[in-house]
Amino acid sequence: MQAMDTDQDAAMLHVGAALLHRQITNVFTRWGMPQEAADTAARVMVETDLSGVDSHGIGMLPYYQQLFSEGRLDPRAMPQVLRDEGPTALLDARQGIGHVAAVAAMRLAIDKALQGGVGIVGVTGSNHYGAAGWYARMAAERQLLALSFTNSPTPFLVPVFGRDRALGTNPIAFAAPTADPQRPVLLDMATTAVAYGKIPIARRAGVPVPPGWALDQEGQPETDSTVAHEARRLAPLGGTRKQGGHKGYGLALMVEILCATLTGARVSEGHTGHFFIVIDPARFLGAEAFRQELDELLSRMRGIAPIDPAQPVLVPGDPEHDAILRRGREGIPLVPVLVEEIRRVCAEAGAPFLLDTAGAGAAP
Amino acid sequence: MQAMDTDQDAAMLHVGAALLHRQITNVFTRWGMPQEAADTAARVMVETDLSGVDSHGIGMLPYYQQLFSEGRLDPRAMPQVLRDEGPTALLDARQGIGHVAAVAAMRLAIDKALQGGVGIVGVTGSNHYGAAGWYARMAAERQLLALSFTNSPTPFLVPVFGRDRALGTNPIAFAAPTADPQRPVLLDMATTAVAYGKIPIARRAGVPVPPGWALDQEGQPETDSTVAHEARRLAPLGGTRKQGGHKGYGLALMVEILCATLTGARVSEGHTGHFFIVIDPARFLGAEAFRQELDELLSRMRGIAPIDPAQPVLVPGDPEHDAILRRGREGIPLVPVLVEEIRRVCAEAGAPFLLDTAGAGAAP
Repeated sequence: MQAMDTDQDAAMLHVGAALLHRQITNVFTRWGMPQEAADTAARVMVETDLSGVDSHGIGMLPYYQQLFSEGRLDPRAMPQVLRDEGPTALLDARQGIGHVAAVAAMRLAIDKALQGGVGIVGVTGSNHYGAAGWYARMAAERQLLALSFTNSPTPFLVPVFGRDRALGTNPIAFAAPTADPQRPVLLDMATTAVAYGKIPIARRAGVPVPPGWALDQEGQPETDSTVAHEARRLAPLGGTRKQGGHKGYGLALMVEILCATLTGARVSEGHTGHFFIVIDPARFLGAEAFRQELDELLSRMRGIAPIDPAQPVLVPGDPEHDAILRRGREGIPLVPVLVEEIRRVCAEAGAPFLLDTAGAGAAP
Repeated sequence: MQAMDTDQDAAMLHVGAALLHRQITNVFTRWGMPQEAADTAARVMVETDLSGVDSHGIGMLPYYQQLFSEGRLDPRAMPQVLRDEGPTALLDARQGIGHVAAVAAMRLAIDKALQGGVGIVGVTGSNHYGAAGWYARMAAERQLLALSFTNSPTPFLVPVFGRDRALGTNPIAFAAPTADPQRPVLLDMATTAVAYGKIPIARRAGVPVPPGWALDQEGQPETDSTVAHEARRLAPLGGTRKQGGHKGYGLALMVEILCATLTGARVSEGHTGHFFIVIDPARFLGAEAFRQELDELLSRMRGIAPIDPAQPVLVPGDPEHDAILRRGREGIPLVPVLVEEIRRVCAEAGAPFLLDTAGAGAAP
């Protein structure tokens, strides 16, 4: 995932976070989701948009609506603890929206880590949970390190040497607390080279996709964006075998094993699983010394001589941090197509559409 | 890391595992390493060679000799437990060889996982520990899942947008037990696109390096192997920013934070740290059900239609498994240059050189 830098487009509607939150909870509660659960899921989504990760916030609402209408997402389901012993637990999301189960799981993992140094919590029977990084950040805000993984049931990734899709974009997120609580290290990455959404964007723009992103129907590298769009096949991070594609495939398989296999989430039935590992730095170097050492490491990274003086070396989480500041002031930009899709979702849910231009243009 | 497929080269000396083990322990004990520690380190190295990962077995002996002669590796040092509480512990390798401290740390993590579901153990003040995957496999042999990380103090990786090296090749290994105890899932990967050793190999062969491997002095992609060899700069896994290089950089930074920052291993002084996470599947889906589900997942991967019928889709660990079978029969192949380097190491240590052709050609 990558923070977008398209906020200045005049065609965009800029919406304040509070209004967007209200719009989402309006839809979710009409589906029958309890108010508290709707607030939780909406908070994750809006904060994801605030941090610039447009692909995983409100942009997912039409997809959730589709899951709901097909009976694959139960808005009333509340997560259930299947096992809970010492540092580990397993939750069943019972086909609810992923965000609610994932927040419950991460809260439990954080409590365990604060009490016993480590918390490892899996979630089975879930749905899309938004941005993997949001949950890792939750732990960093409590001065903990965290890993957050989810499988994604839609196959896009073609294993090295293969012709066919077999795994989702299966992301990995990692967060670590720094001296600035608002600015954790935050890595959030698909294990494919890019998210699938970038292929149709290139096709609509009539430009080729860079080598290493996509494959054709035969599993061969493809840069023609029309062919790539039809093939719906993504290369693993790294691209070809020679360039390290077996590593991206291996990471995607690791995520699948932790999130789906280990939690018992049956991917063949469209289920999703999540997996969280939370670690208290107080058990190792010590919380304060760790933050100091980390700040020194990050300063060293940011201080590396850049190729282009206008583009300094970044630390994972820097683009998201910048987006939060900018969008907190300017609002969250929504492309016209998305606004219309939200209007349709509202109509189908019988929820009021709140994003009319006049109301939405206001400051957050 | 990648299992080599060069075993048939007639110029190679094929050495049995037992003899290679004796050769290594002979050197280590002459340095003053206690017999048991020497046996441990030699076992890790020889089994790494058996599994085809030539870059991290006996091939590292000349480097260890250099560290020893410079006073950076203390062969007498025994690891010390600095902290040990519940699921976590921190060990100090006290500048000993990495293998000995890493085996102690992984044993402790395994014990913790078998008792309490999870073991997370860090190591500070260490040296090179060989192949990250060897330790992850240790846990898989006990029916546990494991992650194994190490930082490497020699900077090769250039962060995206930068000109200069700032991180090592910082590997990530993951293992999971399958129904066949000899054949775990085993991912073991540098977070650069390739290990540095592949650059001088290309230079000596007079061939360019593939795009995505190396950078020039200015941090720009470089395929001329002579220029790349002089620049000593590796691209992160993914290559350029557009192709996902920020992900490889992010993973390398994560490894640095877990292994060096969190354990307090000061990289500026050439120290190395390791980090191990071990998880008992019995705490989640259950040990037996997990293995069954995993075997189903792996069958699905291996069953994907291949591009080339002669090259089926693999699962991480398959090349290593094949190498173990082959090299168990045929011995471990050593290139002539390495044999001469080992001869020199033996001479400097005052240890007998055991790899004369006659003795070495025998079956393992």
